[in-house]
Amino acid sequence: MQFHHATLPNGLTVLGETNASALSVAMGFFVRTGSRDEIGDESGVSHFLEHMVFKGTERRDALQVNRDFDRIGADNNAFTSEEMTVYYASVLPEYMQPSLDILADILRPSLRDSDFQTEKKVIKDEIARYEVRPEWAAYDQSRKLFFGDHPLGHSILGTRESVDALTSRQMMDYFLRRYSAANVIAVAAGNYNWDEFLASVGAKCGSWNGGPVAARRREETKPRPGLQIIPREKTTQEYVMMWAPGPSAESPLRYAAHVLTSIIGDYTGSRLYWELVDPGFADSADISYVDGDAAGAFLLSYSCQPETAAANLKIVERVAAEIQRDGVTDDELRVARTRLAAREVRGSERTHRRMLGVGRDWIYLNEYRTLDDELAAVDAVNHAAIRELLDRYPLRDWMTVALGPLEKFD
Amino acid sequence: MQFHHATLPNGLTVLGETNASALSVAMGFFVRTGSRDEIGDESGVSHFLEHMVFKGTERRDALQVNRDFDRIGADNNAFTSEEMTVYYASVLPEYMQPSLDILADILRPSLRDSDFQTEKKVIKDEIARYEVRPEWAAYDQSRKLFFGDHPLGHSILGTRESVDALTSRQMMDYFLRRYSAANVIAVAAGNYNWDEFLASVGAKCGSWNGGPVAARRREETKPRPGLQIIPREKTTQEYVMMWAPGPSAESPLRYAAHVLTSIIGDYTGSRLYWELVDPGFADSADISYVDGDAAGAFLLSYSCQPETAAANLKIVERVAAEIQRDGVTDDELRVARTRLAAREVRGSERTHRRMLGVGRDWIYLNEYRTLDDELAAVDAVNHAAIRELLDRYPLRDWMTVALGPLEKFD
Repeated sequence: MQFHHATLPNGLTVLGETNASALSVAMGFFVRTGSRDEIGDESGVSHFLEHMVFKGTERRDALQVNRDFDRIGADNNAFTSEEMTVYYASVLPEYMQPSLDILADILRPSLRDSDFQTEKKVIKDEIARYEVRPEWAAYDQSRKLFFGDHPLGHSILGTRESVDALTSRQMMDYFLRRYSAANVIAVAAGNYNWDEFLASVGAKCGSWNGGPVAARRREETKPRPGLQIIPREKTTQEYVMMWAPGPSAESPLRYAAHVLTSIIGDYTGSRLYWELVDPGFADSADISYVDGDAAGAFLLSYSCQPETAAANLKIVERVAAEIQRDGVTDDELRVARTRLAAREVRGSERTHRRMLGVGRDWIYLNEYRTLDDELAAVDAVNHAAIRELLDRYPLRDWMTVALGPLEKFD
Repeated sequence: MQFHHATLPNGLTVLGETNASALSVAMGFFVRTGSRDEIGDESGVSHFLEHMVFKGTERRDALQVNRDFDRIGADNNAFTSEEMTVYYASVLPEYMQPSLDILADILRPSLRDSDFQTEKKVIKDEIARYEVRPEWAAYDQSRKLFFGDHPLGHSILGTRESVDALTSRQMMDYFLRRYSAANVIAVAAGNYNWDEFLASVGAKCGSWNGGPVAARRREETKPRPGLQIIPREKTTQEYVMMWAPGPSAESPLRYAAHVLTSIIGDYTGSRLYWELVDPGFADSADISYVDGDAAGAFLLSYSCQPETAAANLKIVERVAAEIQRDGVTDDELRVARTRLAAREVRGSERTHRRMLGVGRDWIYLNEYRTLDDELAAVDAVNHAAIRELLDRYPLRDWMTVALGPLEKFD
C-alpha cells in the first residue's frame, strides 16, 4: 500500500493508493460541492447536475456513456451529498485507462437544453416518490428546522417547485462556479500504475478551467431545543427525529462520536435497542453521527405506534440523561470499538471503499490516512474521550420533530 | 492463496482457502439440505430450523448467541435455499477461534419447545409479509407450477398452514436426518492458520453424529409449455414469469448459461433492456439462470402495466426466437464476458464471497476452483458453446405465468 499525491497546474488534485495485491482499480472524481453550496434560487441544482453529467458530452451521447462503461464491465455510479458530488467506477486493472477516459469526459458535460428539460421531469418524479415516504419527509423537514439558516439545512433534492423553476442557464452558472479544476480531486485505489494514472489525468483534465472557488461559510451548529409536531393523517406510524449539535468531520472528537453512537444505537445491540426495539416499544430506534464540514450533529430517531410515541420519548430522554451523567461501561466501550474496527476492515477489502475513504479524508482533513491510522484512532477512544465529547456536545436540548398521525404529545 | 481439504472421522468435510494478504477471515457451515429435501408434511421446516439454530444451545441462550457474535464484531447471518442451509460469520483474524466456537455451538441447537412456539409466530408473520408482495407471489407460484412434482418446486418458506401444523418433534426428526456431520462442510477463507482451524473444527465438531444421509432424487426438469393467468385484483402491475429448462449447476454448459442470460437480460444493457425497459414498455425485464443440483432452468420475467402485458409477451417471444435462430453477436459475447469477469473479480475482494464460492463449488462439484479457473471458464465461452446450450436447452416452450389485474391475455 503506497500513497501518492500531485497537483496539476490548473489546481486539480490527484491522489492515489496503490496496492499490488488488489484485483481491481477503483477511481473517483470528487467535486467539493453539494446542496450547502447552493445560493439563491438554486435549490436542487447540485443533484440535478449530477444527473445531467451522464447525459453526454461533445464526444459521447447518453447512450454511448452507458455503453462505454458497460463494454469495460465497469461498476459505476455517482452521488450527491450536502458537501460533495462524487462520480466513480471500479474496473479490472486492464481497463484503468478507458474508465478514466469516460469519467474525465463526462465531467465536462454538454448540458444541452433538451436533455435538461427531459431530466427535469425525472428529478421531479424522484422528489415525488420521496415525498410520500414519511421517514424521508420527517428527516428532510427536521433537518431543515434544526439547521435553520445554516447552509447544511439545504435539501439535496430541492422541492418540485425549486427544480421546476431552475433554468439551464442557472445550472451552467453553478457548474462554472463549482466545477473548477481547483475544486476537483481525482482519486484511484487498487492495482494500477500511479505514473500512468497521473499522466492520463494530466492529459485529460489539464485543460479544464481552474478559476478560484468561493470559500464556504463555516460555522458550527447551535442547539435548538423544542418539540415540533407535524401531523400527517395518512401515516400509520409516528416518526420522531431528535437533533443536537455534534462534532464536525474534522474534529478529533469524531472517533469518540462514532463509538458513542454505536453504544447508544447500533442495530446489533445497544442501549436504544434493548430499551425500545427488543421489548417491542418501537419498530426502530437508532442514533447517527452526522459529520459535516466545520459543523456536526447527532440525529436520534425512532418510529412506533402513535400511542407509544410520548412514552418512548421519555425512555429516550432517560437513556440520554444516563449516558450524559454516567458515561458508558468498560464492556460497552470494548464491544463498540471491536465492532467499528471490524466493519472498517471488512469494508476496506474493496478497492471501492478505499477510494471513497482516501477522497473523503482529503476533502475534510487534507490528509491521507491509512486503514491502520483509522483502526488506531478507534482503538484509542477511552472513557476520557467520551467524557470530553459529552461535555462539549451534551446529549440534551434536543430539537424533536414528530411526523405522523399525532396532533399532540401527551 | 492456498487450498486445504480434510475429512473428520465422522464425515464432516473441512475446507480452507488461506490468503495471507487478506484482512479478515470468513467462515461458514454449509449443510446440504433445503426445501427440496423436505418430505411429507414438512414444508418450511428447513427455513424454520435455520431460525431455531439462533435460539440457543446448552451453553448459550438466544441473547448470548447475539451478544457473543457482537462482542467479536462479527458480521454473521444465515440463509436457506432449496438445496443448502448456510451459517456464516466474518471477523478480524484474531477472532477466528471465538467465531468458530459460536458457529459450531449453535449448529447443535437445543430446539426447545417454548422457543419453537414463539418462533412459529415470527415465521408465519414473515410468510404473511411475503404473500402480499405480488412479485414474490408470482415467483413462488410459477416456480411450483413449473417444477410440478420435482422437489425443486418446494417453497422455501412453506405456507402459513404448513408451518402452523409443524411440530417440534418433526423438526427434531428433520434435524437428525439432515444435520449429520456427513452432510456438513465447514469452510474458512482469508487470513488464518489452516492447521489451527482444522484442529479446532475437529475438537468442536468431532463428536457430532455422523450417520448416513439419504441420497436425493436427481432428475432433470422438463418443459411445461403453456400460459396460466392468476388474477389478483388489488395489484396495479402485471407480473409475468416464464420458465424453461436449463443446465444444472454441475453442467459444463453453466458458463454459457451465465453469459447468455447476461446478453439477454442484464440491467446495464441487454436485448430485453433495449426492447422493453428503455422504450418504457415494461418497468423491468430480465432473465436469470436458476442452477440446481442435477436440474436447472431459465426464468425470464417482466412487469408492466396490464394493458401492455400481451404485446410485451410477443416482443419477448420474438427476442427469444431471434437468439435461438441466430445466436448472439461477437460484440455481445465480448461485453458479457467482460462484465461477468469484472463482477466475479470485484466480488472476490471480500473473503466472505470467496468462502461462499469455495463452499458452493464443493457442494455442487466436489471440487475446488480458484478465481482464475472461473475467469478462464467465462473467457472460454464462444459462439459454439452458446449454440450447444441453445440446442440442448432451447429458448422456447416457455411455461408462462401472469399474476396481476388481467383475467386474460389478448
